[in-house]
Amino acid sequence: MIYLDNSATTKPFDEVIQSFTTVATKYYGNPSSLHGLGAEAEKLMTHAREQIAQLLRVKPKEIVFTSGGTESNNLAIKGTALALQSRGKHIITSSVEHASVKQAYMQLEELGFEVTYLPVTKDGRVQIDDLKKALKKDTILVSLIHVQNEVGTIQPIEEAGRLLKQYPKIQFHVDHVQAVGKVPLPLDKWNVDLCTFSAHKFNGLKGTGFLFVREGKVLWPLLSGGSQEGTLRSGTENVAGFVAMAKALRLTLQKDTTPLIQLKEYLMDELEKLDQVVLHTPKEQSAPHILNISFAGLKGEVLVHALEKHDIFVSTTSACSSKKQAHSETLEAMGVPEHVANGALRISLSWHNTLEEGKVFIQAIKQSIEMLNKTMRRST
Amino acid sequence: MIYLDNSATTKPFDEVIQSFTTVATKYYGNPSSLHGLGAEAEKLMTHAREQIAQLLRVKPKEIVFTSGGTESNNLAIKGTALALQSRGKHIITSSVEHASVKQAYMQLEELGFEVTYLPVTKDGRVQIDDLKKALKKDTILVSLIHVQNEVGTIQPIEEAGRLLKQYPKIQFHVDHVQAVGKVPLPLDKWNVDLCTFSAHKFNGLKGTGFLFVREGKVLWPLLSGGSQEGTLRSGTENVAGFVAMAKALRLTLQKDTTPLIQLKEYLMDELEKLDQVVLHTPKEQSAPHILNISFAGLKGEVLVHALEKHDIFVSTTSACSSKKQAHSETLEAMGVPEHVANGALRISLSWHNTLEEGKVFIQAIKQSIEMLNKTMRRST
Repeated sequence: MIYLDNSATTKPFDEVIQSFTTVATKYYGNPSSLHGLGAEAEKLMTHAREQIAQLLRVKPKEIVFTSGGTESNNLAIKGTALALQSRGKHIITSSVEHASVKQAYMQLEELGFEVTYLPVTKDGRVQIDDLKKALKKDTILVSLIHVQNEVGTIQPIEEAGRLLKQYPKIQFHVDHVQAVGKVPLPLDKWNVDLCTFSAHKFNGLKGTGFLFVREGKVLWPLLSGGSQEGTLRSGTENVAGFVAMAKALRLTLQKDTTPLIQLKEYLMDELEKLDQVVLHTPKEQSAPHILNISFAGLKGEVLVHALEKHDIFVSTTSACSSKKQAHSETLEAMGVPEHVANGALRISLSWHNTLEEGKVFIQAIKQSIEMLNKTMRRST
Repeated sequence: MIYLDNSATTKPFDEVIQSFTTVATKYYGNPSSLHGLGAEAEKLMTHAREQIAQLLRVKPKEIVFTSGGTESNNLAIKGTALALQSRGKHIITSSVEHASVKQAYMQLEELGFEVTYLPVTKDGRVQIDDLKKALKKDTILVSLIHVQNEVGTIQPIEEAGRLLKQYPKIQFHVDHVQAVGKVPLPLDKWNVDLCTFSAHKFNGLKGTGFLFVREGKVLWPLLSGGSQEGTLRSGTENVAGFVAMAKALRLTLQKDTTPLIQLKEYLMDELEKLDQVVLHTPKEQSAPHILNISFAGLKGEVLVHALEKHDIFVSTTSACSSKKQAHSETLEAMGVPEHVANGALRISLSWHNTLEEGKVFIQAIKQSIEMLNKTMRRST
């Protein structure tokens, strides 16, 4: 099997699963309990939090454990909007966000918030000038994706942060989910207030993630109750999951991106040689692990299934949107014509992938295209 | 070690951890992915959902997977309030709810909702007449705990449901977390619209739970995005966790409560013989696994630590509230004087506990009280 759908989810590292199992079996106390079994669990969780904070060069109390990327994005966005609505009701995002950002904004629109969706270039990139022009007196939130999840475009987060530093009342949220371990985001240097992480995108476990919340920033808790996570996210903590997440993050940040870049460049070079191909991923300022292409005249979904016969797994778009069978709003925002966007294929890499797998993939895609072209000619 | 803090959290069944590990290792696909690896994961999750639905005699699509009890309670309460606010802004709950219900109501109060907190009897029980009187034209939500998490009192859910059947525009939510496997709630017979479950309270894993949402009931999703869980709860599903939860529920519902009842009765009989004791758990209509007592003149926290020296783990109150060191609002609502409430100790049982452990506990508590009384006499 060749798994090239790592932007949908990754295979957990073996050590990550081992950590989870050990903690869930032996340290099952509730970290909020006063007794020793609770204290043991709390100690493990505190250690995980400290480890993550150290890796990211932030404070442990700035790490808010959640159930994943969707929760972190919703907490950052709705949490800011509902906490700061007395200050203003204008919120900004881009037109190429993950569904969990887009939908959160749309729900807030229903509640009476005014939303500006920033346009993007043909490379899928937000322009700082557009952000600057969109800012208003009552703007309270800007949310941008770091590495665009469908095409891999890197957004100008550093520049946006620099601009927003002049507007200290605006909370700046970054969806860093696809970038972890692939495109650095120095939280100690860039002016980012809120930053989303999802463990299963960096070989951790589904159901775990966290939100970086810079000290002093305020949020209306979506999940309130027992006041865990500095009251920002209540609920008995998934101790085993968070310990496993810290391990996944440590292992991920130790990795070198060179093999990913090499593999992506090899694939890009080989794919460009093919007829019918349209590259959606920009060559400059894009992540080392995402490659989005179309083959004119072919449907993405058909290609996904054709490749599956070669035991190769890719996707058409983000997993979260793939079953809706709608066109990609990201490609639409980039100005890709609908008939081309319908053919889009996302190839996303991880450290488990080898150059050898890349070669097999190229052969398989060539055969698949040839076969599909023949079928189409026969049927017309 | 004798673990008697099962209302805080339970030890996962071995089979549950095995299920998790197998799924996380082998079936790591994203259930939303179009390819076979995604389909495999989705199949496992669908099976888990069907299994849970069958156990509870409801429809699979009425099971909404979440990250646990706190999320389920918040989704039910805030989700109803924000979805139905155009219809009315009056919401009702009791004065003996879990923090995740209480805090959700308090946040809604801040957003302009009007809340009625129903009083309770000295047994901690809501009276149906009080609920009846509280209902108004603009009431949209009633939320009640089934088994009170600190004292074990069973609330009159069947009667409340019967009353609320006459008000079909009101959504009736029940926090069933502490009752699962101990006090039945027939969702096919009682008029409950929304019902919260948390896996780690029934020997499943932390970070997993679900909300039963009766067909036709509406909620404003707290976590929106990729439209998973019928759009009510987005986010890549914790497939391994949900498969493990289905297993935990199946194993739990197979259990017989007789040994719990016998152990609780034994403890109650023995504890009643002691001087200074005040029972907070009512003898009638209380759950088989929770026993709340005070010893006049002694602090609960001190007793927790004294028992810990005997390798016995109990708690003072709910885990979610134990570190706040505040007085128990539940006992206050029941009319227990503050100096007595400060001595409260919660003993909560699971199927892992034996009568032999009960005997050791009684000996240990006798010795602890004697020792503490001596210390106090010496220091006064």
